[in-house]
Amino acid sequence: MEGTVRSSANYAPLTPITFLERSAVVYADRPSVVYGSRTYTWRQTRQRCLRLASALCNLGVNRRDVVAVLAPNIPAMYELHFAVPMAGAILCNLNTRLDSSMISVLLNHSGAKVLFVDDQSLELARGALELLSQSNATLPLMLTISDPQSSRANDYESLIRSGDQDFEIKWPADECEPISLSYTSGTTSGPKGVVGTHRGAYLNSIAAILLSDMPAMPVYLWLVPMFHCNGWCFTWAVAAQGGTNVCVRRVTATAIFDSIALHRVTHTGGAPTVLNSIINAPASVRKPLPHRVCMITGGAAPPSHVLLKMEELGFKVIHQYGLTETYAPAATCTWKPEWDSLPAEERARLSSRQGIQHIGVEMDVKDPATMRSVPADGATMGEVMFRGNTVMSGYYKDRKATDAALAGGWFRTGDLGVRHADGYVQLKDRSKDVIISGGENISTIEVESVIFGHPAVLEAAVVGRPDDHWGETPCAFVSLKEGSQATAEEIVSYCRDRLSRFMVPKTVVFEELPKTSTGKVQKFVLREKAKAMTIISSRL
Amino acid sequence: MEGTVRSSANYAPLTPITFLERSAVVYADRPSVVYGSRTYTWRQTRQRCLRLASALCNLGVNRRDVVAVLAPNIPAMYELHFAVPMAGAILCNLNTRLDSSMISVLLNHSGAKVLFVDDQSLELARGALELLSQSNATLPLMLTISDPQSSRANDYESLIRSGDQDFEIKWPADECEPISLSYTSGTTSGPKGVVGTHRGAYLNSIAAILLSDMPAMPVYLWLVPMFHCNGWCFTWAVAAQGGTNVCVRRVTATAIFDSIALHRVTHTGGAPTVLNSIINAPASVRKPLPHRVCMITGGAAPPSHVLLKMEELGFKVIHQYGLTETYAPAATCTWKPEWDSLPAEERARLSSRQGIQHIGVEMDVKDPATMRSVPADGATMGEVMFRGNTVMSGYYKDRKATDAALAGGWFRTGDLGVRHADGYVQLKDRSKDVIISGGENISTIEVESVIFGHPAVLEAAVVGRPDDHWGETPCAFVSLKEGSQATAEEIVSYCRDRLSRFMVPKTVVFEELPKTSTGKVQKFVLREKAKAMTIISSRL
Repeated sequence: MEGTVRSSANYAPLTPITFLERSAVVYADRPSVVYGSRTYTWRQTRQRCLRLASALCNLGVNRRDVVAVLAPNIPAMYELHFAVPMAGAILCNLNTRLDSSMISVLLNHSGAKVLFVDDQSLELARGALELLSQSNATLPLMLTISDPQSSRANDYESLIRSGDQDFEIKWPADECEPISLSYTSGTTSGPKGVVGTHRGAYLNSIAAILLSDMPAMPVYLWLVPMFHCNGWCFTWAVAAQGGTNVCVRRVTATAIFDSIALHRVTHTGGAPTVLNSIINAPASVRKPLPHRVCMITGGAAPPSHVLLKMEELGFKVIHQYGLTETYAPAATCTWKPEWDSLPAEERARLSSRQGIQHIGVEMDVKDPATMRSVPADGATMGEVMFRGNTVMSGYYKDRKATDAALAGGWFRTGDLGVRHADGYVQLKDRSKDVIISGGENISTIEVESVIFGHPAVLEAAVVGRPDDHWGETPCAFVSLKEGSQATAEEIVSYCRDRLSRFMVPKTVVFEELPKTSTGKVQKFVLREKAKAMTIISSRL
Repeated sequence: MEGTVRSSANYAPLTPITFLERSAVVYADRPSVVYGSRTYTWRQTRQRCLRLASALCNLGVNRRDVVAVLAPNIPAMYELHFAVPMAGAILCNLNTRLDSSMISVLLNHSGAKVLFVDDQSLELARGALELLSQSNATLPLMLTISDPQSSRANDYESLIRSGDQDFEIKWPADECEPISLSYTSGTTSGPKGVVGTHRGAYLNSIAAILLSDMPAMPVYLWLVPMFHCNGWCFTWAVAAQGGTNVCVRRVTATAIFDSIALHRVTHTGGAPTVLNSIINAPASVRKPLPHRVCMITGGAAPPSHVLLKMEELGFKVIHQYGLTETYAPAATCTWKPEWDSLPAEERARLSSRQGIQHIGVEMDVKDPATMRSVPADGATMGEVMFRGNTVMSGYYKDRKATDAALAGGWFRTGDLGVRHADGYVQLKDRSKDVIISGGENISTIEVESVIFGHPAVLEAAVVGRPDDHWGETPCAFVSLKEGSQATAEEIVSYCRDRLSRFMVPKTVVFEELPKTSTGKVQKFVLREKAKAMTIISSRL
């Protein structure tokens, strides 16, 4: 427009780094991260992140290099969410529940230059590096993170000490530059590394704040692993609101109730399994909540009895829905005051739906062939799709998969759903046969391909079996080659050697697989069978 | 990054129009706008805006055309904040307190194609159009807004009826396209039309929500004229949170207390004069608040006794600071829990500071010559400057003024301030309002705040008066509360007890203070008066 300009005075790339910059002033002396007896303030967190970013640069980490991390929810993990982007690099969080073989595949695919490893995952990391070196791949520099109070080697704290707290942040030149690389399950088909941008992370953090009704200075208890979609962006969101991050290494009912009482937690989040641990906690472990605690949950819709029980205990459950490809939650089943007076069961039914798009993104249910929206009749199924600023840039090094996922200008989730008359979307099924177990996605295709490798196996099909604790667990239906023999234990043990623990089938059933006339396995028949099996939940 | 793309699937221009799109689904049946006995729902508001946008296009309004409005806080004014951008056009709100001559200047400068006029401003508008036609300028199409219940001609409602509610929104092709054109007071130098973008409006609305701790479904009472910086972006912010906009035509203490009680208002905002009306309201008008009400104020720092009184009445005052050039509030004096236990006077002192930058923008206090930041010592004065996404694109048709305002990559506010040790910024004066007396800088705000403390004083303004010896000396213009008495000697002696000697006014004049249409004291008028006074230099 005549007379106007675009300059650094009126345009700056959106990046969550700015959240820390502001909170380090406004909330300078307030606690940023609490872990056991350790507490950092926002001023300290900023200083530590600057030093770490400086040290990374000194190590030779350049713009757009990948820095990988293998750690649970400890302060270092939180700090890396700022320090790595401050160095201009890309944060790649690895799931500590994967096995060495998978970790080596992901390190190789990402080309990570540095790998930070929590000292309890050292064996896992060493195994991965050994596999990498066997295949003559370039090895990342491995750096350990140990408790600062321990006597063990601690590369992480040494790095921080060596860094310069007057480091000049390497701001992204463009807000669409990558900030994160998050691998979703999927090894046989090739790893899928979801690339997130500074802009997307900024905007989804804002959405996380708004959709969780998170005021200034929240106290956020970390139950969601930060390695899952950057803790659903709450890593950055809590910084934006100058909150306190309460870190715990292990998620147990005791840790949850103790932390809530001790730190006066206001917000937390977790998969439905976490909700289960809470409602099933023995009376000796339970503690009264200091006030209503906001619990953001996603993955699968929590069953109504879980929702009711959580409400009774004093939690306000917020049900969200999203995928790694949408920086995690992209829709919330926003509560309507009109629902307050409904019967409990009806309230639970309404709130178990996936809901409505967040600010910053658009959600629709479409016929994937015609790309027409389905009518809002609560019955017509379509594929749930997203588009907008909080959809990934694509899959790293896999343009074909990117183009397929974003074909037609929408990200296709592979989830099937309906739109209700009130505009809320509800999932009905997954077109990809994904099992969600304890908050982890398990690709059935992946498990099946391992079972297929067993010399005695003719065919295999894996489905989810409902489980009170885990939500679902993998259940394998197997038919054997003529004349071959194998026990369920043998199949399970075979899988254990080749799969991350949470992906191993908990049940193996030998039988001929039901098929359609065209020879496709009828998974819906198997799902019904699995559901009908009376099983005592196996808590691993 | 290899494998990624940028497409409509993962990038959409940021625009506040999306706020309405979402709320029309989530909060479809909840009240969006309330005005007297009229109530609209969010679904209705969206439909009306779509129809209006469609009708504007049918009238020949094109992308980037300017649509001007001359109206108080009525529902039409709110709707135009969405309908005009939906048509791809630029909203230009005109101050209803200006005179015809000024309106004609602004219409001419903006090249407005359409002018919506509230029927109580018809005379003003007609006067302006007459002046325009006398100068052979192109006239905008004038359209009236009348109460739908009245029998008067109502072009506005006719337009809405004629429009198509399936109108396809003309989304901005680029988020940096203009959404608003706001003229600042500055009349002597010629009109300054501040251009705001979709991106800036989006981000400042988000900041407004976060910095006002505005949860979902707020009830916002409109006391700030929407024609002031688009109601400081709360027009869009309330839509983003699915709140209710309570509109009142006239801001009186009665209207304020009645509306708060009737609609259970949660948030409101107003200039310090509004705070004065509230605290000075007679007991017969006051009503108990239904809960703590958030009052966002800006402009000048409210004096401590006002803050205390507001607190007593049940308001939580949030003090913000900004300019039209920063989409209004760009800094907030964020309250720290550490302050809770301080004595009332100390609390008021701390919270009367301008504070800390909002998310989305950077604030600094710099030496305008060297552009170096001043030390955070609470004493070294510098010019307050902003840069980032919520700084204007520039002044319409005035590249020279734009370049001057944004020189060096920062927007120069012309306000002088200091940074305190805790990082908070405090204004000390407008650079042009500083009095330099005997080589000492005197902050007029500081002198005024002392005079305000005198029990008989209603309002006070201090300007510099030319003085042969001192260069300038402070001259105070004071109006007294009804029924109160005070002599010039009493005021001077009161100041002497509380100010450094050189800061004490040498002259006190009792009179009503001249104000601009926006309620700001016209210091230039007072300066002229002070200059005209023949005074024998009083050498103290």
